[in-house]
Amino acid sequence: MEVMNFLNEITSRHPEAISFGPGRPYEGLFKAERIGDYLDAYTHHLRDDLGRTPAEVRTLLFQYGRTNGQIHHLVARTLHNDEGIQAHPESLVVTVGCQEGMFITLRALFARPSDVLLVPSPCYIGITGAARLLNIETAPVPEGEDGIDPEALRRTVAALRAAGKRPRALYVIPDFSNPTGIRMTLPARHRLLELAEDEDLLLLEDNPYGFFTRSTGTHRPTLKALDTRRRVIYLGSFAKTCFPGARVGYVVADQHVRAPDGRQTLLAEELSKVKSMVTVNTPALSQAVIGGMLITHGFRLREANDEAAGFYRQNLDVLLDCLDHLLPASRRQQAGIRWNAPEGGFFLTLTLPIPADNALLERSARDHGVIWTPMSYFYPDGGGRHQMRLSLSSLTRDQVTEGAHRLVSLLERNCR
Amino acid sequence: MEVMNFLNEITSRHPEAISFGPGRPYEGLFKAERIGDYLDAYTHHLRDDLGRTPAEVRTLLFQYGRTNGQIHHLVARTLHNDEGIQAHPESLVVTVGCQEGMFITLRALFARPSDVLLVPSPCYIGITGAARLLNIETAPVPEGEDGIDPEALRRTVAALRAAGKRPRALYVIPDFSNPTGIRMTLPARHRLLELAEDEDLLLLEDNPYGFFTRSTGTHRPTLKALDTRRRVIYLGSFAKTCFPGARVGYVVADQHVRAPDGRQTLLAEELSKVKSMVTVNTPALSQAVIGGMLITHGFRLREANDEAAGFYRQNLDVLLDCLDHLLPASRRQQAGIRWNAPEGGFFLTLTLPIPADNALLERSARDHGVIWTPMSYFYPDGGGRHQMRLSLSSLTRDQVTEGAHRLVSLLERNCR
Repeated sequence: MEVMNFLNEITSRHPEAISFGPGRPYEGLFKAERIGDYLDAYTHHLRDDLGRTPAEVRTLLFQYGRTNGQIHHLVARTLHNDEGIQAHPESLVVTVGCQEGMFITLRALFARPSDVLLVPSPCYIGITGAARLLNIETAPVPEGEDGIDPEALRRTVAALRAAGKRPRALYVIPDFSNPTGIRMTLPARHRLLELAEDEDLLLLEDNPYGFFTRSTGTHRPTLKALDTRRRVIYLGSFAKTCFPGARVGYVVADQHVRAPDGRQTLLAEELSKVKSMVTVNTPALSQAVIGGMLITHGFRLREANDEAAGFYRQNLDVLLDCLDHLLPASRRQQAGIRWNAPEGGFFLTLTLPIPADNALLERSARDHGVIWTPMSYFYPDGGGRHQMRLSLSSLTRDQVTEGAHRLVSLLERNCR
Repeated sequence: MEVMNFLNEITSRHPEAISFGPGRPYEGLFKAERIGDYLDAYTHHLRDDLGRTPAEVRTLLFQYGRTNGQIHHLVARTLHNDEGIQAHPESLVVTVGCQEGMFITLRALFARPSDVLLVPSPCYIGITGAARLLNIETAPVPEGEDGIDPEALRRTVAALRAAGKRPRALYVIPDFSNPTGIRMTLPARHRLLELAEDEDLLLLEDNPYGFFTRSTGTHRPTLKALDTRRRVIYLGSFAKTCFPGARVGYVVADQHVRAPDGRQTLLAEELSKVKSMVTVNTPALSQAVIGGMLITHGFRLREANDEAAGFYRQNLDVLLDCLDHLLPASRRQQAGIRWNAPEGGFFLTLTLPIPADNALLERSARDHGVIWTPMSYFYPDGGGRHQMRLSLSSLTRDQVTEGAHRLVSLLERNCR
């Protein structure tokens, strides 16, 4: 959390700089005037499809509500259409953004002091931060080109067991990971599921970027869609596919677990008990607007996100083209600069021959008017010192082009 | 949490019963058609008062937002008007209901394993449940007629210190406590503030019911309004004064603390770090609607709640009158039945000569069609076995009358 303060400080000191920092979605596609329509769509659904009386509709909008949410059936239907995930509505928990989903899942799953959460290295800070708040030990597992390295995972699990610990779950973003942009291949997904079964691990699959592929038709199934043994807890977000301000996410937690009182129950029910003491329930108003969006788009967010997907795809194309053009292969090899070419998502990894640290970031913002995130921020165990994360989700096409030029001028000045 | 399940089960098995169980606000005063007006009032405020452009307004409604909230200045203004509390907007954290406020406050304040939270006995389960999730030890302090007994508090603190613990804060609802309905006198408030100073304790003041006094003109200052030494962290809720479905609450945390990195900072800033890993930020939409309500009501919720206050006052009057009439003084003395006559709020305590336990509750629902909450549910350390909590907030006047008759028939059958 502290490291991000430096980035925020740099950003506020250099408001004119182009920032490849924030991973938030592009705002130009949000339509404020549609909020009322979405609310209407939801209330019509309550009235016409579910036969609710006006008084019941009022209760559902204004009163305390069901802890696990009131749009769980709408979310389940959409998940089925978009991802082929068969989730019983009762196994869904609607949360205050995906962050609360991660938080309550960790709290419910990690009961013993010996329980350890496995995280990729580098890793999204939302999960490591939540683990820290709950005093949950994390163990980093290196990411390879295909995502989590299965052999490294096996070794880490064995070492933890030998030390008397219980590796409980692995957090993973299979599609266009934050921060690296890496996407797991289909065989790698199957291998990971097998490994989870062999090693008795749960997989916490986080999927905020899966819709945003670079070319159409290359959708890969989520781990949850491939999961035949309830090894996967699916962490869903509407922040990028609808909008972040609603703060609506969800967890698919269809595992059968034993409650503290000995009863067999769904993990979703245990999450509900935790959630009741964190936020009571997800705001009805937010659920109504997101529910209305799902209804309006025929329970298919993938198609509804065509325009957004095209926008992000174009930004990624433009950035990669600019970098290719400004730093042709021979020149970048000579300088020791390289980058990956993700098949989608919001992020790209750029590797330098020199440290991509706060000092370089400061010079970058001051002298070149361009901001990025040091990749080292995302390493729980040190690492990534020569890398930067470039995020292209919140910039226009022109800003990406201009930003690429500024970035190259930074590199040319410093990497020789 | 488990005990409440029994109550919920009884309630769903006996849908026709009149329930003095739930502490939620009456729904008849909610106006669904006003949501759009409140949203408009807020966006006009952003545009006209704060000079925001349409693009900035869109960002504020749809994008990720400031962790500590975006209506903090509106809340501060309302708090000043309604309670005479002088809170700098920067010391406010807008939360997903008061529950998140309690949760993040506990997480930020209780750093060492030896830190102990003092709670009244009986106590609202939202705070003890949050403490349990965070593995924070609680120590009960008995409530007397005037609220927390200062001598008992002093003894508890001394005993904890002698055992090597650090009593860190006391949770308290000075106005019409949940579950008992007790209200602290003005001298008792001053005594508690002095004691907090003497014993180096923080006071977590929760005030959901303060507006709902039985007769006008008997407003008493909150602890926070009397607090000259920043001993009080004020936990605010809009669930009863606006509506619960927005899930908007707040914390006034104006204490100067030392951050883990050694810097002096506001406690609100530390809460912000915790909140960023729990819910990121409170939904913009919920904040916009509540902000719009504050603006619409001229930053004065007390007057705006006149109708609601009248409703609850009438219910309390009706219930007390019915009980008085049906069980006159001589008869109830003979039977060993008594109740308190709170000056406001949602709750009343009824004391019986027999156990007010789950068995009696079951007979009450089945044979008499009336439901209530065993007071024992609220005792962290056992106690309250002969008492019930009666809540009158979600019933109509006729239901209160009929419910009182059913209750008396239960008492007459069982208390002899």
